[in-house]
Amino acid sequence: MTVGHYNEAAALSGVLGYGEPDLPGPTHRHKEATALSRVLEPHSVAIIGASANPDKRGYQIIKALKKAGYNYPILPVNPKGGTILDLPVFSDINALPDAVDIAVIVRPAEEVPDILVQCGKKGIAGAVVLAHGFRERGDKGSAAEQRLRDALGKSGVRIIGPNTSGMLNCTVQADLIGLPELPPRGPVSVLTQSGNMILSVVEDSRSINGPGFDVIAGLGNQTDVGYGELIEELCLRESTRSIAIYNESFLDGRVFLEAAARVGQSCPIVMLRGGRSIEGRKAALSHTGSISGADDIALKVLAQMGVTLVDRSDELLPVAALLATSRLPRRETGIAVLTDGGGHATLAVDALSRSGVPLASLSEDTKVKLRHVLGDEASVENPIDVASAADAYPDVFPECIEILASDPQVGLVLINGLFGAYHIRFDASLLEAENAAAERIVALRDAKGLPLVFHSCYANRRPENHNILRNGGIQVFPSIDWAVAGSKALFDRANWLFKRGSHKETLAPEVPRVVVPIGLSAETTARGILQRLRVDTGEWSAASDAGSVESAVSNFATPCAVKLDSAVVVHKSDVGGVRLSVTREAARAAVDDIAKAMASHVPPLTTFGFIVTPMVNDGVELFVGAINDPVFGPVVLFGSGGVLVEAVKDVTFRAAPLSPLEALDMINETRVAKILDGFRNYPIVDKRSLADFISSVSVAIMRMENISELDINPIIANESGIYPVDVRLVGK
Amino acid sequence: MTVGHYNEAAALSGVLGYGEPDLPGPTHRHKEATALSRVLEPHSVAIIGASANPDKRGYQIIKALKKAGYNYPILPVNPKGGTILDLPVFSDINALPDAVDIAVIVRPAEEVPDILVQCGKKGIAGAVVLAHGFRERGDKGSAAEQRLRDALGKSGVRIIGPNTSGMLNCTVQADLIGLPELPPRGPVSVLTQSGNMILSVVEDSRSINGPGFDVIAGLGNQTDVGYGELIEELCLRESTRSIAIYNESFLDGRVFLEAAARVGQSCPIVMLRGGRSIEGRKAALSHTGSISGADDIALKVLAQMGVTLVDRSDELLPVAALLATSRLPRRETGIAVLTDGGGHATLAVDALSRSGVPLASLSEDTKVKLRHVLGDEASVENPIDVASAADAYPDVFPECIEILASDPQVGLVLINGLFGAYHIRFDASLLEAENAAAERIVALRDAKGLPLVFHSCYANRRPENHNILRNGGIQVFPSIDWAVAGSKALFDRANWLFKRGSHKETLAPEVPRVVVPIGLSAETTARGILQRLRVDTGEWSAASDAGSVESAVSNFATPCAVKLDSAVVVHKSDVGGVRLSVTREAARAAVDDIAKAMASHVPPLTTFGFIVTPMVNDGVELFVGAINDPVFGPVVLFGSGGVLVEAVKDVTFRAAPLSPLEALDMINETRVAKILDGFRNYPIVDKRSLADFISSVSVAIMRMENISELDINPIIANESGIYPVDVRLVGK
Repeated sequence: MTVGHYNEAAALSGVLGYGEPDLPGPTHRHKEATALSRVLEPHSVAIIGASANPDKRGYQIIKALKKAGYNYPILPVNPKGGTILDLPVFSDINALPDAVDIAVIVRPAEEVPDILVQCGKKGIAGAVVLAHGFRERGDKGSAAEQRLRDALGKSGVRIIGPNTSGMLNCTVQADLIGLPELPPRGPVSVLTQSGNMILSVVEDSRSINGPGFDVIAGLGNQTDVGYGELIEELCLRESTRSIAIYNESFLDGRVFLEAAARVGQSCPIVMLRGGRSIEGRKAALSHTGSISGADDIALKVLAQMGVTLVDRSDELLPVAALLATSRLPRRETGIAVLTDGGGHATLAVDALSRSGVPLASLSEDTKVKLRHVLGDEASVENPIDVASAADAYPDVFPECIEILASDPQVGLVLINGLFGAYHIRFDASLLEAENAAAERIVALRDAKGLPLVFHSCYANRRPENHNILRNGGIQVFPSIDWAVAGSKALFDRANWLFKRGSHKETLAPEVPRVVVPIGLSAETTARGILQRLRVDTGEWSAASDAGSVESAVSNFATPCAVKLDSAVVVHKSDVGGVRLSVTREAARAAVDDIAKAMASHVPPLTTFGFIVTPMVNDGVELFVGAINDPVFGPVVLFGSGGVLVEAVKDVTFRAAPLSPLEALDMINETRVAKILDGFRNYPIVDKRSLADFISSVSVAIMRMENISELDINPIIANESGIYPVDVRLVGK
Repeated sequence: MTVGHYNEAAALSGVLGYGEPDLPGPTHRHKEATALSRVLEPHSVAIIGASANPDKRGYQIIKALKKAGYNYPILPVNPKGGTILDLPVFSDINALPDAVDIAVIVRPAEEVPDILVQCGKKGIAGAVVLAHGFRERGDKGSAAEQRLRDALGKSGVRIIGPNTSGMLNCTVQADLIGLPELPPRGPVSVLTQSGNMILSVVEDSRSINGPGFDVIAGLGNQTDVGYGELIEELCLRESTRSIAIYNESFLDGRVFLEAAARVGQSCPIVMLRGGRSIEGRKAALSHTGSISGADDIALKVLAQMGVTLVDRSDELLPVAALLATSRLPRRETGIAVLTDGGGHATLAVDALSRSGVPLASLSEDTKVKLRHVLGDEASVENPIDVASAADAYPDVFPECIEILASDPQVGLVLINGLFGAYHIRFDASLLEAENAAAERIVALRDAKGLPLVFHSCYANRRPENHNILRNGGIQVFPSIDWAVAGSKALFDRANWLFKRGSHKETLAPEVPRVVVPIGLSAETTARGILQRLRVDTGEWSAASDAGSVESAVSNFATPCAVKLDSAVVVHKSDVGGVRLSVTREAARAAVDDIAKAMASHVPPLTTFGFIVTPMVNDGVELFVGAINDPVFGPVVLFGSGGVLVEAVKDVTFRAAPLSPLEALDMINETRVAKILDGFRNYPIVDKRSLADFISSVSVAIMRMENISELDINPIIANESGIYPVDVRLVGK
């Protein structure tokens, strides 16, 4: 795991502010042609299985390439030879020119491995494999999948697929999918596990007159190329400014997390996840044969790595379009809403509030200037309601934007209402003035750099002035909710870049590695392992019999908890294995009680010991845990603790390791965080000590081999410290 | 309050199933012309303040009426006389013909009261008052508002407004708002507190090629006509099949709740609320001068009365359009998703799962039939994925729908993917076949009655076959999320109608009324009042001194809680006013302890007594409360109890009174409900007894005069019963 290695200075410098003209441009892109970069932007395409029959995919792809205006060699391959759509047909792969960039293989599954080997021999960089009948078919297809893997190893060819609907590159006009028409070239790249979602994003972009596409690829089974490698490659492309992903499953989520954290430094990633519900997961399985990670965990660890998550399919494209074209708000600013109608402003402010995006507090100077422009009817508090000031004079908008650009509290202006449609709503003669206002706004944005997002309820009518804004790289949305989702994404990204920049390395290299025993460990073993890995588990003593329990209790000089220490019993208190407030005098009786209770619960001759801990004063019950997630690897959990932990479900997640700063964010996400600040008679808990503790656990689990699960529950937290009460460790 | 009065038989009968052809049609509409019905559908319009100046509103309204094709008398009034737009001008109101339906008053605020009085004398039924400068201006306008109210009383004229952008009726083509063009006539009526939201819903309807509008009205200040009266009047109109509301505030929320529960029996209401956040409330205040209710309460009590709530402004119109045109699913059915692409199906199923709409379990018979139609590639589990079966043969869709219509588990079919665009995506020659498939689907829907909802990612291209569906009253949405939100609304409405139908009268008339003393009551007073109102507050004794405490404890024959009983101290345990597990022997000491603790906390000579209750075994801590909400009146609260009640925020709300069945719903909405079913070592609690208790509290508070607040917290619930531990009652 390489999180925490980023250049703090770079992230903390002005790159977050809109003062920097080159954001969100590339920071570490290059033009070295790797096999994958040639696949994503092919300068020659061979079609293996080309056909002269218009009903066949081997014909349609050639037709689509020509229709799209692809200007590089198209090389059909078919043993029959001849010509297809006026192109000479090569009789076999061997006959092709050298160093073709990509082969589109339209032959059935069983032929693909041999074809790949031939492609490899001929020096073809990569292939798109459309065939299905592999892993997604379950047992039936897994033998085919294995043959495919073998061929990949032998040939060295990089493949996208199999079971993909293809890919396209708008920059070189290579349509290997066969869309009705090539979408406009632009800054959004798309990765998806569903062919229909390609159609959806293209249509959604068409509807909002979006900024267009660079590369669109269907990942299929990810047998070779997966999400991690693709986002890194897309990020190297100057022409990609945001990556929209429809994801159903990762073959290795940890690889993606690491790639996302690197890529996110220069290129925003927006993700819609499918298969989040149990029912949806079943639906996803039926068509890609992969496994999605547990949804709660996925959402938290993806956001941790800077991925913008959208819940709704209709928001993927709008948010990606905005992130691709807008600069980011400066740190510690808020949003100014500039509106011409109270209802729209109210709804925008409600939606912003739900999203947690702060409204800017306008300076007195700003308010005075706004009043001067807007007159007495307007509201110059945020949201700024121009009321009727703009009805006959659309330049009110650029004038207000210019004023807001000078206010250091304003990080983004959301213009909302009827913008650009006064010539439709009120008076056709306003058309010219509205176009001029739009021109002024684009020029202002270029000069000041302030991010601008527009909502207009007339956006779907596409008035000319909206197109002036869009051509200037400013998005205009017909939905308030899309405008707000996009604005939130910009603020979240700015915050993430800042926090990531100030993120310290958390994995001290000198911490040893420890192998966790298989199955449940005795609590003394678990605490011992944690301590070796620098987690403070407080005061405790192991004891093997009544005598050693008695001396342990007297050593602590306070009443103690005496608990069974066994690798067999999971819930000690459920079986009478716990005695509380035990004094020195009562120690032997406590041991007897526990031993008696045990006799009826464990097989005869099971050995067990005792663990003695000093009693802790009352406090808040918390929970810290860890699991080895099958998709994302080591993940830390934090939340409300105690016996009700599963019912209360106040828990959050992060990929390990994490810094104390990240742990503090984690704490503040939970409901119990409010109680930690002192509530009624509850003690005030030092959140920073708690964050240090969580961070130390996150580092420790990175050093544990074979860990399956760690539960520290409850932890009693009070004004004097953090006290782990029960520790459960399970190895696999 | 009249909830619970509805005809159970009607609601339980077939009206919920799509087998009934007349749903969601009217059940109690009539055509009696009231003043308000004449206002909403005017057959003559006077314009008071008509103008010959095209820049003036008094000219524009006349122009808009003529442009819209209004076919009834337009009667301009202006002392100057002459003609405007070829219409003769009346020199004063007195000169108008008798019994004009509506006057549009475009004169400024100060003239409006006099004009209304003149209108009344002339027998004009109602008026739209556009002027602002009333209550929404704060103190400055409230005198004007009062003069307006006086004039209303004198004149008897019903007014919409003031401070409204007007109203329109598409059925009689009366545009009193002045839209760019009159929207198409259709079944959706709209009420809004924002003029811009009128433009939004009209544009949103235009975008999705919606079913059109009946009446659209801006409520303005609601000085006369408010939401409650308007929805009842709209519900009487045959031409209104759903009511979409943008609401920022109610002047009397209770009146609306009662009206909504009545209207909801025959006409669905969809509501988007503005001013839900603190910031949004401020924004709303700045333009309408009203107060919104607390959001959490509003959402629950509105849903209780059958109002469909939407969170997003872009969902108001789509959901209202669907509710206006679709029948309802039968009881105890689920949704079948019929798709041509895995990704789209996965997203639809995820969204349905989030919404809590169940997927239908298809019968084996259905699956066999589907397999026969779809072949081996398809998935015949729900979601049904036709895979490529439809690519060249669009009739696959009506064939599958016909099969699904015969499955008793299927209550609604959501068709999702590329529907209707195969001629765009694959082959232009499919156009005819797709149109024919759409015709078949409309015919099928008419024959079978099964509700159908379509998503197509090509919907914004408006292919001909989508229009065939829409003209047949079937909605096609470009967003999966809108289709799902609409489907959920249909299921929720069906459930609400059923539950409402089985709702019993809960207000037994023989329960007495009780006046709650001002301020905090002593606990014995509070328990006494509750008992008189038939709430079982368990065993308790009042005691005035050590002797009577001692004898109370010995009467209970178990250890008791002895608590201070005082109207001065709110949190007894915080000041040492509670002694637990007190035996007869310890009773006098306990009283001494409490008395001593009191001496330092209350003013000298404050009298107080004691309350003695038998100790209760451990159990789950719950909370039942009630408040008199300033907007919605008596509201009951239920949730997790104990000291952390405010931090845990596991609470839900209902308007009182409510039936035990409604209380059970309420219980099941909370997180603590899971624990009540038995969790780890927790006792199993009888939810029905708990529901009876909540219902009894809800009835009791309806009988309390001057109640401000009631807190029963904690209530200990365990296997043997429900035990109110602390009772706090506050009068106002």
